[in-house]
Amino acid sequence: MISRNALNFSGGPGALPETVLAQVEAAIKEVPEVGLSILGISHRSDWFAAVVEETENNIRTLLGLSKDFHILFLQGGATQQFSMVPMTLLRGQKHAAEYLDTGYWSSKVVTEARREGPVKVLWSGESCGFNRLPADDELDFSPDAPYLHYVSNETVEGLQFQRILGRDDVPRVCDMSSDFLSKPCDANKFSVIYAHAQKNIGPAGVTIVLVHDTVVKASSEELPSFLNYRRQVESHSNLNTPPVFAIYVVLLVTRWLLNDVGGLENMARTNRHKAELLYAMLDNSDGFYNGWSSVEDRSQMNVAFKLPDEMLVKKFLAESHEAGFSGLAGHRAIGGIRASIYNALSLPAAEKLTNFMDDFMRKNRK
Amino acid sequence: MISRNALNFSGGPGALPETVLAQVEAAIKEVPEVGLSILGISHRSDWFAAVVEETENNIRTLLGLSKDFHILFLQGGATQQFSMVPMTLLRGQKHAAEYLDTGYWSSKVVTEARREGPVKVLWSGESCGFNRLPADDELDFSPDAPYLHYVSNETVEGLQFQRILGRDDVPRVCDMSSDFLSKPCDANKFSVIYAHAQKNIGPAGVTIVLVHDTVVKASSEELPSFLNYRRQVESHSNLNTPPVFAIYVVLLVTRWLLNDVGGLENMARTNRHKAELLYAMLDNSDGFYNGWSSVEDRSQMNVAFKLPDEMLVKKFLAESHEAGFSGLAGHRAIGGIRASIYNALSLPAAEKLTNFMDDFMRKNRK
Repeated sequence: MISRNALNFSGGPGALPETVLAQVEAAIKEVPEVGLSILGISHRSDWFAAVVEETENNIRTLLGLSKDFHILFLQGGATQQFSMVPMTLLRGQKHAAEYLDTGYWSSKVVTEARREGPVKVLWSGESCGFNRLPADDELDFSPDAPYLHYVSNETVEGLQFQRILGRDDVPRVCDMSSDFLSKPCDANKFSVIYAHAQKNIGPAGVTIVLVHDTVVKASSEELPSFLNYRRQVESHSNLNTPPVFAIYVVLLVTRWLLNDVGGLENMARTNRHKAELLYAMLDNSDGFYNGWSSVEDRSQMNVAFKLPDEMLVKKFLAESHEAGFSGLAGHRAIGGIRASIYNALSLPAAEKLTNFMDDFMRKNRK
Repeated sequence: MISRNALNFSGGPGALPETVLAQVEAAIKEVPEVGLSILGISHRSDWFAAVVEETENNIRTLLGLSKDFHILFLQGGATQQFSMVPMTLLRGQKHAAEYLDTGYWSSKVVTEARREGPVKVLWSGESCGFNRLPADDELDFSPDAPYLHYVSNETVEGLQFQRILGRDDVPRVCDMSSDFLSKPCDANKFSVIYAHAQKNIGPAGVTIVLVHDTVVKASSEELPSFLNYRRQVESHSNLNTPPVFAIYVVLLVTRWLLNDVGGLENMARTNRHKAELLYAMLDNSDGFYNGWSSVEDRSQMNVAFKLPDEMLVKKFLAESHEAGFSGLAGHRAIGGIRASIYNALSLPAAEKLTNFMDDFMRKNRK
């Protein structure tokens, strides 16, 4: 018997590992080491300083991150980083920063960046309806750009880069909100990586930001303190009261990744396996399940697909809900169905969905 | 037997009502109406829209708030509002906004405001060591100021205004982080009221902002979307993923205030009673417990006091912890002891602390 929480295929806030949920539940009453509810523990306590330190260390270990990076736990979501990055690296620049417009989320990033300085959209998926990502020979990176920005995984369309883009002599900035810590990543090749927690690593309300020391040094003192990477680094993510609860949950998830899963190689293997199951279902459905993404750019986090008509989409959603599944409605921007298979979604859950899809297809194919 | 959570006198994140904690604990496993963990429910769900709406309505009812106000649930703490207010109302202004510098927190507000435009500090408590608030005849408000800003309750020093300041023809902006919803308040006399949740109304990670429609209309489209009140209002606090969990806890606390406590008059009566108990202890201690604030400006939320020497402070903290109390260390900026008696701190808990203080004094008075 798989619980409803374990069958939550939501695009985010998404499922968390059951063992983490059990620990969080206990912590609402009492964090054992402190004897108080997690909701009433001071952000200035030694205990919380240790939480932040261990979470940082776990992320460093998981990614093999160099000491040149600072790890921040900030509020405001990825959206705040859409602005903090250009506020820090683009204001007053002559050369345009280069952005890739690969889907729903990267379009939003570009809008915010343009407020701060010159932006060049190096490639846009608009003309193809955002159903594929650019190949290397479509991308002509300039050595003069202050930085390159791209989104590693587009959650809405289900598109994911399987390689690192850009030039080694231009800072790389990446929104990894929806695939951070889902697989090994050579994070040291980037200057800024940011990821809100609510996909793979925790609840909504905290964003993990890895900032290279050169970026921290470029922070302007004219910025409001909370938008200044240097001030945030100096205060160890404690410039003002941080989201204590959300950070604690991230700690528990990183412990789970290290100790229960056994690291990002193992996590990636399971994630790949889950994605293969679902995409095989699409590929063997004779067009009944029509994948959104081109085959080569398929996301291992979000499997977005269409059904032959709107009535079938409604029926699929109703019957899957009846069967215990949640969160399968496609994003309101594109409709259809989306199965998000973040870290906490188990292989048995993905198998159960595949079986449901197979049944549904047999009963409803004309 | 009073639990450790109920004896948490922390300055914030602070205690939450025990009945709220029990509901939160259950919601980590499953929100009954949804059948999923609160941590995995989509911010775009009908359920969450209803949570936001009910929380807004509860706050409106508790305060008797007019329809000219919008209620927002934002990230970034009060600190983000330190900047959002002047970004909206001060940029490009000739006349200075007027700020009161009444303690640790208002000093921080002034620093951020100065980045955005001209600021006049109308009164500062610096010369008297921030141990009192200004009287009316010390304040000469200008009719030309774009707005007046003050902090209603200084948590560090334990100072609280017992009246509304300023002129009716100049917008009033107030940081009510530490006394919001602790007593009735004529909120309609203000243009912006903001309060982070982690004192009286929820966990760290969400800030409640009441914004008058005239301020919303003054928002500049040049600001990043997340710092633009208009964009936040238009999206009903759902511009990007909001802190779903923290907002849900705020809902539970507002339900508790309405249904269990029976409104802000009742809440104020209990809060006054708790404060009177503790201040009577100070007044009858013959100087052993030496209150920080002048008598007339005493806070009903934070009772800050000194002991004859540092050794006694350490002893007080150790023995009170042994007796089940938490969070009694004074803020690192001023030391000593601070008993924060926010809404969730019960009268029996305040009585228990008073008894402890009485015992401690008898044993340690020379």
